Amino acid sequence: MGRARLRDLGINIGVMPTGEYNAITDVPGVRVGHCTLIYDEPRVARTGVTVIQPRGGDVWDDQVFAGFHSFNGNGDFTGTHWLDESGLLTTPIALTNTHQVGIARDALIAYEFGLRHVEDFALPLVAETYDGWLNDINAFHLKAEHVYHALENAVTGPVEEGNVGGGTGMICHEFKGGVGSSSRVARTDNGDFVVGAFVQSNYGRRHLLRVDGVPVGRELGYDRVPSARTAPIEGSIIVIVATDAPLLPTQCKRMAQRAVTGLARVGCIGHNGSGDLMLAFSTANHIPYGQMTLFDVQMLPHNQMNALFEAAAEAVEEAVLNALTAAETMTGFKNRVAPALPLDDLQEIMAEYGRL
Amino acid sequence: MGRARLRDLGINIGVMPTGEYNAITDVPGVRVGHCTLIYDEPRVARTGVTVIQPRGGDVWDDQVFAGFHSFNGNGDFTGTHWLDESGLLTTPIALTNTHQVGIARDALIAYEFGLRHVEDFALPLVAETYDGWLNDINAFHLKAEHVYHALENAVTGPVEEGNVGGGTGMICHEFKGGVGSSSRVARTDNGDFVVGAFVQSNYGRRHLLRVDGVPVGRELGYDRVPSARTAPIEGSIIVIVATDAPLLPTQCKRMAQRAVTGLARVGCIGHNGSGDLMLAFSTANHIPYGQMTLFDVQMLPHNQMNALFEAAAEAVEEAVLNALTAAETMTGFKNRVAPALPLDDLQEIMAEYGRL
Amino acid sequence: MGRARLRDLGINIGVMPTGEYNAITDVPGVRVGHCTLIYDEPRVARTGVTVIQPRGGDVWDDQVFAGFHSFNGNGDFTGTHWLDESGLLTTPIALTNTHQVGIARDALIAYEFGLRHVEDFALPLVAETYDGWLNDINAFHLKAEHVYHALENAVTGPVEEGNVGGGTGMICHEFKGGVGSSSRVARTDNGDFVVGAFVQSNYGRRHLLRVDGVPVGRELGYDRVPSARTAPIEGSIIVIVATDAPLLPTQCKRMAQRAVTGLARVGCIGHNGSGDLMLAFSTANHIPYGQMTLFDVQMLPHNQMNALFEAAAEAVEEAVLNALTAAETMTGFKNRVAPALPLDDLQEIMAEYGRL
Amino acid sequence: MGRARLRDLGINIGVMPTGEYNAITDVPGVRVGHCTLIYDEPRVARTGVTVIQPRGGDVWDDQVFAGFHSFNGNGDFTGTHWLDESGLLTTPIALTNTHQVGIARDALIAYEFGLRHVEDFALPLVAETYDGWLNDINAFHLKAEHVYHALENAVTGPVEEGNVGGGTGMICHEFKGGVGSSSRVARTDNGDFVVGAFVQSNYGRRHLLRVDGVPVGRELGYDRVPSARTAPIEGSIIVIVATDAPLLPTQCKRMAQRAVTGLARVGCIGHNGSGDLMLAFSTANHIPYGQMTLFDVQMLPHNQMNALFEAAAEAVEEAVLNALTAAETMTGFKNRVAPALPLDDLQEIMAEYGRL
Repeated sequence: MGRARLRDLGINIGVMPTGEYNAITDVPGVRVGHCTLIYDEPRVARTGVTVIQPRGGDVWDDQVFAGFHSFNGNGDFTGTHWLDESGLLTTPIALTNTHQVGIARDALIAYEFGLRHVEDFALPLVAETYDGWLNDINAFHLKAEHVYHALENAVTGPVEEGNVGGGTGMICHEFKGGVGSSSRVARTDNGDFVVGAFVQSNYGRRHLLRVDGVPVGRELGYDRVPSARTAPIEGSIIVIVATDAPLLPTQCKRMAQRAVTGLARVGCIGHNGSGDLMLAFSTANHIPYGQMTLFDVQMLPHNQMNALFEAAAEAVEEAVLNALTAAETMTGFKNRVAPALPLDDLQEIMAEYGRL
Repeated sequence: MGRARLRDLGINIGVMPTGEYNAITDVPGVRVGHCTLIYDEPRVARTGVTVIQPRGGDVWDDQVFAGFHSFNGNGDFTGTHWLDESGLLTTPIALTNTHQVGIARDALIAYEFGLRHVEDFALPLVAETYDGWLNDINAFHLKAEHVYHALENAVTGPVEEGNVGGGTGMICHEFKGGVGSSSRVARTDNGDFVVGAFVQSNYGRRHLLRVDGVPVGRELGYDRVPSARTAPIEGSIIVIVATDAPLLPTQCKRMAQRAVTGLARVGCIGHNGSGDLMLAFSTANHIPYGQMTLFDVQMLPHNQMNALFEAAAEAVEEAVLNALTAAETMTGFKNRVAPALPLDDLQEIMAEYGRL
Repeated sequence: MGRARLRDLGINIGVMPTGEYNAITDVPGVRVGHCTLIYDEPRVARTGVTVIQPRGGDVWDDQVFAGFHSFNGNGDFTGTHWLDESGLLTTPIALTNTHQVGIARDALIAYEFGLRHVEDFALPLVAETYDGWLNDINAFHLKAEHVYHALENAVTGPVEEGNVGGGTGMICHEFKGGVGSSSRVARTDNGDFVVGAFVQSNYGRRHLLRVDGVPVGRELGYDRVPSARTAPIEGSIIVIVATDAPLLPTQCKRMAQRAVTGLARVGCIGHNGSGDLMLAFSTANHIPYGQMTLFDVQMLPHNQMNALFEAAAEAVEEAVLNALTAAETMTGFKNRVAPALPLDDLQEIMAEYGRL
Repeated sequence: MGRARLRDLGINIGVMPTGEYNAITDVPGVRVGHCTLIYDEPRVARTGVTVIQPRGGDVWDDQVFAGFHSFNGNGDFTGTHWLDESGLLTTPIALTNTHQVGIARDALIAYEFGLRHVEDFALPLVAETYDGWLNDINAFHLKAEHVYHALENAVTGPVEEGNVGGGTGMICHEFKGGVGSSSRVARTDNGDFVVGAFVQSNYGRRHLLRVDGVPVGRELGYDRVPSARTAPIEGSIIVIVATDAPLLPTQCKRMAQRAVTGLARVGCIGHNGSGDLMLAFSTANHIPYGQMTLFDVQMLPHNQMNALFEAAAEAVEEAVLNALTAAETMTGFKNRVAPALPLDDLQEIMAEYGRL
């Protein structure tokens, strides 16, 4: 399950309580499944695929409202045109590397057809970040079976973080990055709502890294820890935000953009080469496939969203940091080494800045 | 009430039935009010303001869902940032000329405060088209009282068309243009819904004008009717679409963009100088001002919207043509003359093309 | 090369002259390549892939400015996030069916890597429409080799239309549809510019079809020609607009949205199930891959774009009609038959409406 | 000129050097003018207007490229439709309160017409934040003359900060807010470029305020300094970013969105009631009014923008903090008091966190 989570190190982000697992799976019904590919022959693989199921295994028939935001569009996320138009999320979300988006997308369609046998089409949601520094990306390792594996092994409960699934070969702030998750419980006059965040984290420069506001990246100079990068490719980050608050599509889009605030606190500024794309969905309303008659949906008034906004910022901030504390040093393609964020140094620096 | 409506001339657009008044006011609760300013001293006025009340006089407290689309943004429509963000329309809509947007906007705020005495802010929706060819626009004729007049005299029932309100000095396809309206009844498996359109019409080149697909503009050459233009300023068109179908904000936005299809059938191509801006709202759901608890709203499934889309296209197409058949020849600023579309010629040409 | 082109039938759209081939390939450097898959065993194939090369075979290294518009987002078009962000088109465009987008996308990456051997990533542009009525879409017929074939056989000159490439199994206004193209020469004070349009046409209801404004669809009732549809799936249309006018990205986006006007004239209203997505690019400016220093680009002033806008509307309108007149009756999956638009009837109806 | 600037207190944001004045006016040609209205009779005024001139006094005839971003649209910014469509900024920008947007807008038109005497229209850029807690906003204090005064007194050099111009009555993180500015010099392989930021700052909750990552807002509890707010109205922030780097409109839009990262570092999360709107412009390219022939513009490659992005984040972060350190405690409408951020406490807290 990765080396450590940020809270295990005594570092807490923000002021709101987390959910049970401090993960996106704290939103009831949300499941995460990984398939990880690590091998050296015949060609070096440090890659994989992650699937997020918004509604157990049943989002095709029991759809959710969703919204999308692009902070910096140097990346791909298929299926967003219909999501923008309709406000509906109608398939699971897959996350993988840049050159495997196509196989993941078509595999999601094939899997759905195998399950449902309807004569219809699907526009799956598949996002990517680039792992070509540690992974021989032009080997196109991913196969449809790997996507099926991730779909069938998606679970609730704790989320595996670090070098797993789509995050296997990713790099973040010049340290080893990958998968991270976190959650918050937003207490409102209308009851408690969970906000969960999930990131596939592969962006950023060292000197910009902040942990709870402390300039850890500037302190951890290249003399202390070498960089995971030799070339100025800045990577990307995909953020998925989930909530059980009853939000309309318009409101989900607002939540998606709030992910930028969490990223900015850590040190993301949307570098040119980074595909920083965010999707938020709400599980509260059920939109049945093929619904043809009027139906009621519930809406949280806009003026009640502030706690959700703050929760999204905190959960996204912590999810990125969880990716960094979980991920282990990895050696990959061309014997390149991506060093893990050193946890001892991290704690030492935090203490120097009056935070531990 | 203008010279004639298109249907009075035996010309019918599309295949769907109209509402009772064939106007945006067929959507229950929608009211239209005009204030028209026509005088020559001290400076030439051919201008005015029109107000559309989405919900009788009460939209401040009983808000509606809405969506916006810009087909060509060479115009202004204040208040759309919050409409885009929230999906809410929270004030009446005012339409006037380009240089009177500000006074209309602040007057809407002052009027609202006078009525409601709340310590709050408003972001009124005010749109414009340019009447500076017939109207001495830098005289800034409009005063707050004119806006109040339009608000207080907004009525349901037949809509005055042609040279009235905000449309007073407008020009369309090089003929006298201005205000037009139309409506359709969309018959769906979920019952009948009304779709109403309202335009302040001030765009377009002569040769592009089509009436029910007939190239009337090419037939009505400058030898037959002189142009209302000496300079290549293309004008603008504002379209308001209203419906009583229960649409979410996302769906209202879809309806707004559908207005482009109606315009395109008439001959709008979004010339560079034209501000072609569309707003659609749905009166079905009631969003109370200050609502702080969860509430239910009703949604028409997306797959039931096709009849509404076709209705919007037909109603917008006919609304523009109603503006042209209603508007009378006008002499204005610098003795410029904007000729009305000649109705005899129109009928003659339609007959030649097998349409009467 | 298809049965006929609209102009061969004596029907001319608009007032502007066409380019030499009356096709998107009239824009210098633009090439189109098809790979068509028609067979019945082991599973019925009526599909394929089309590739548009914006800059001969070299767009990866010599990029073009581009813009995107979604009229109705019920479809997919990968790679648009970076296009929106940067205004750059950096790969060829592939068009295929809904379930083959992934394979086409990854194949474009593999092909590029095979050519250029750079350690970099690509975000290919791949769009789709649904051919599952005539084609056994869940057979996933397309292989990477088919994409390579289309890339390597892309040519300038006349464009094959109708039942070819990505358009092979498509249906339009309940007649057999598919590929169509057209072009216009826009005469401006800054010289002549070519505007070319290409469509993969698979949308629309019969009763809405108009040919040069004549309600052909209403005249061609189901008693005269049976429908190609038994189910209310409305399909989609992808439009590519190319020009050699020097446009910035912002201006390309304007051109993309103008495609809606051409579609609307034919009878597209953006049905709910339709993915109506438009991309426009300009070949005038050359943006070198890896450029790291300041460089000059040329810009046509916005106020000179009107002729381009009118050209885009005309070319898109005619491209869709060319798809209809070119496509032949096709029998496919489950022995379904999509009837061609009958050319005799078409001419007869046009004559009745005073157009021939 | 306000109490102090952040750097005077020994607190430096980020790693990049500032421009000469550490203000938006470091971008050559940019001028800022204020008109401040503070009086108690006949009704309480704590308001004003600020004008930003992008190009000395001549932006009407010598236009600049620009881009816009809405982080949270609960505010107004007139004129953005044409800016979005064209990428052009064609008028000065005015900033005032919510109920004075209209008068400021129409005054900008009247002023322009008085100067240029052209028969044309203008779509001025006017943005707002709400000062109704300290200012009797429904008194509509602002007159056209005040706007003219700000226009005519716009200057280069140091920018007055705190309780001046449009920022006079504003509140930020529950302290007295208002006007702030800052700048950075971005060193690139293509030479140095200046990035300047200007804010009218009126947003945010106390507990979220961070100064260079230090949770100052949590330390400065209500026991130490009372809140400026009794009601949960969150305010707004307008951000203007200027640069002399040669950016196309698409690139200006990227810069505008980067302002969010600077705001997020300070503690902005885009509360529901906040209108958080950003505009960025580049003075490098000159687009002449009425240009009708092809012309060249210069473009910085996208891959050279990272230093500009980091500069924008730093400058926006510091601009907000400058507003807080400059603004003095203000008593206003209904004897409400907005306390200034206490500078002693600020320095003390920074020292406790190892920052001084």
